[in-house]
Amino acid sequence: METIKIGLVGLGTVGSGVLQMLTQNQAKISNITGRQLDVKTIVVRDINKPRNVSTDNIMLTDDLNQIINDPEIKIVVEVMGGIHPAKEVITALLNAKKHVVTANKDLIASAGEELAKIAHDNQCDLVYEASVAGGIPILRTIVNSFAADQIMEVKGIVNGTTNYILTQMQHRGWGYQEALKKAQELGFAESDPTNDVAGIDAAYKMIILSQFSFGVHLSIDDMKIIGIQDIQLEDVKQADSFGYTIKLLGIARRINNGIFAEVAPVLVAKDHPLATINNENNAVMVTGSAVGETLFYGPGAGGLPTANSVLSDIVSVTKNIVLGTTGNSFNNYQHETNLVTPEDVVYPYYLSLAMLDVPGQMLKLTQLMTKIGASFSQIVQTKQDDQSARVVIITHDMSKDQLAQLIAQIAEFKSIDLVAAYKVLGN
Amino acid sequence: METIKIGLVGLGTVGSGVLQMLTQNQAKISNITGRQLDVKTIVVRDINKPRNVSTDNIMLTDDLNQIINDPEIKIVVEVMGGIHPAKEVITALLNAKKHVVTANKDLIASAGEELAKIAHDNQCDLVYEASVAGGIPILRTIVNSFAADQIMEVKGIVNGTTNYILTQMQHRGWGYQEALKKAQELGFAESDPTNDVAGIDAAYKMIILSQFSFGVHLSIDDMKIIGIQDIQLEDVKQADSFGYTIKLLGIARRINNGIFAEVAPVLVAKDHPLATINNENNAVMVTGSAVGETLFYGPGAGGLPTANSVLSDIVSVTKNIVLGTTGNSFNNYQHETNLVTPEDVVYPYYLSLAMLDVPGQMLKLTQLMTKIGASFSQIVQTKQDDQSARVVIITHDMSKDQLAQLIAQIAEFKSIDLVAAYKVLGN
Repeated sequence: METIKIGLVGLGTVGSGVLQMLTQNQAKISNITGRQLDVKTIVVRDINKPRNVSTDNIMLTDDLNQIINDPEIKIVVEVMGGIHPAKEVITALLNAKKHVVTANKDLIASAGEELAKIAHDNQCDLVYEASVAGGIPILRTIVNSFAADQIMEVKGIVNGTTNYILTQMQHRGWGYQEALKKAQELGFAESDPTNDVAGIDAAYKMIILSQFSFGVHLSIDDMKIIGIQDIQLEDVKQADSFGYTIKLLGIARRINNGIFAEVAPVLVAKDHPLATINNENNAVMVTGSAVGETLFYGPGAGGLPTANSVLSDIVSVTKNIVLGTTGNSFNNYQHETNLVTPEDVVYPYYLSLAMLDVPGQMLKLTQLMTKIGASFSQIVQTKQDDQSARVVIITHDMSKDQLAQLIAQIAEFKSIDLVAAYKVLGN
Repeated sequence: METIKIGLVGLGTVGSGVLQMLTQNQAKISNITGRQLDVKTIVVRDINKPRNVSTDNIMLTDDLNQIINDPEIKIVVEVMGGIHPAKEVITALLNAKKHVVTANKDLIASAGEELAKIAHDNQCDLVYEASVAGGIPILRTIVNSFAADQIMEVKGIVNGTTNYILTQMQHRGWGYQEALKKAQELGFAESDPTNDVAGIDAAYKMIILSQFSFGVHLSIDDMKIIGIQDIQLEDVKQADSFGYTIKLLGIARRINNGIFAEVAPVLVAKDHPLATINNENNAVMVTGSAVGETLFYGPGAGGLPTANSVLSDIVSVTKNIVLGTTGNSFNNYQHETNLVTPEDVVYPYYLSLAMLDVPGQMLKLTQLMTKIGASFSQIVQTKQDDQSARVVIITHDMSKDQLAQLIAQIAEFKSIDLVAAYKVLGN
């Protein structure tokens, strides 16, 4: 049987998982592809660092040229992460006619189009299933199985760290700081968690999902991104008593002829499938005009789940090499990008307001709502202490425009403070 | 742009959906495939029957030769259903070098291997995503995304009719007959519902899922198949009070080096993802050695969802035509089939027993359980009327062997009647 040699750049959790899976499942992979896949060379920063996977018969080097200049190596897996020097590394690999598999969402979200062009010019494959939602095979599924349908919306829980924190807040009654600390202890959150908790990681994934679903190229500046750092335990509890779970959702939705994309905390009705996704798990819901609602659920991160997505890419590239069909774009759906205007984006909202407990406050608030043409379905006032009260409201549908007016006008009242304004998703 | 002509055999719900989607999404399909796809000829039984889709500029005929002998038609969609004459039709089409897309699970489950060989001999594609779980793109996902992983188990709710009936029994407290009648009125069940309610439809789907997951070729005789006809409302309620939902599950599982496959009612813990799949929806859970648990959820039937799966097959075949790579098997994972022995298949069980309400009955039962080495975690006795009582038990893990012994020995007691023995699935 012919052998295809593989190079790895990076040997962290995912790289080790790839190495382990390639060894353990060699028979099945050969059965399917008709080729034996062998890792020949691995580029690491420190060749003397002890590793917990066997690298027998593999060259460990800190010199990328050992891969670049080796004509035997056909496929290279980039799992070093980060934008620089990963971008330069992938560019050099593609220009050396290597097919590239990467899990690098930051890079693909920000420079995917540019790299896809370089890949195409070199007749090389550039694939990145593992960049979104770890072990869930969502990108290839959108390419293959929604090709003839019009996707109306793609939304989901695409960051495991924040979902773990929110699950703990709700199930254990922990505050945000306490839940974050626990997530850090368990390795679900980084020591600097900003990228996850501020919603940036989720936004990068939504950019890639939007490319595949709508053919558009969004940049991070096109999206409103609100993280989970300011979510108060009191609102988690209040949402729960209303029958909702607070989740950090990425939403990309076709409205009229434009795209609305946002990452923000959302109140999700408890009987909605996304409300049942707990801890570090991810789920992506794709709504097609013909097919209706579909949901894909699985582990969002972790060495082996992510490695499985990398392996599915390697198998796909291997098949293309065998068939002589490399150089085709992973996603070749292209469509002009239009962002929607705020008056077109309509949701019910959960509003949480802290106010001085003096007569006339509720009147002020309802007058304000009436003025901007908004109405509500639920309202609860609770006392906080002698001076202050908390009022929570679930509104009927409001546009982003109305919400902005409401926020601006509330800001003018010294005695009312808007603590939270979250979208509400029914079942 | 080059055009690829398509033929349809059958113009029922799915055929009409395919026609509608091809017309509506032509721009997107061309964008992705670089080809225009046009339906040229449709073979129907009655060409004079009124249709609720437009067939302008399409030839309607009752003569298959209009497709067979038309060199312009490259891809044919078979949506007539049934084994004969569908098998002869597909064979003739493949021998005429037409690529075939079908939604025919009965045929693929029973003659898939034979037809795949004919397709291969003619360098033609034979694909059938729509044959399992309607709108859920599960087959292509297993092929593409679990290629390098070892699938340990594939299980799920793969029949919408039975899931609709069971959901109504649980949520509305309807008996089986009442729920079936309602399902028939709403078009979720056929006037002769045997194929669905007896679990045969689900078994065919599990045969195909097993082929893709484990590379094995099971026949319907290799599987134990228990339907939902004998499920009593009382057991649905009792299961509910224990924290479980009764679902008709197909399970195919790797145990040691063999495969266990069964379709039967199962008690599913309410916090298990499969317990939340309601009404006519389907869900398939794939557990991979590396990736862990993943779940794919969506509409299990219906014209447009099923048509979407047919369309994804058409797009896939079109890409292969463009790339010159037709004739490769849809699933090329092959592995020797071994069935497991009953002592290796171990589950907790829910046992429901009707017995005469006389002293010593419970003693008999516990002696029996002890004799076969089984123990239980929950037991509840309720009075039914003056003479009889109902005892329900949730056992600890028992092998199929132990269960068979228990059933045989209970049959010897005239005063104890085993009403139900269902597997139990925790969270």
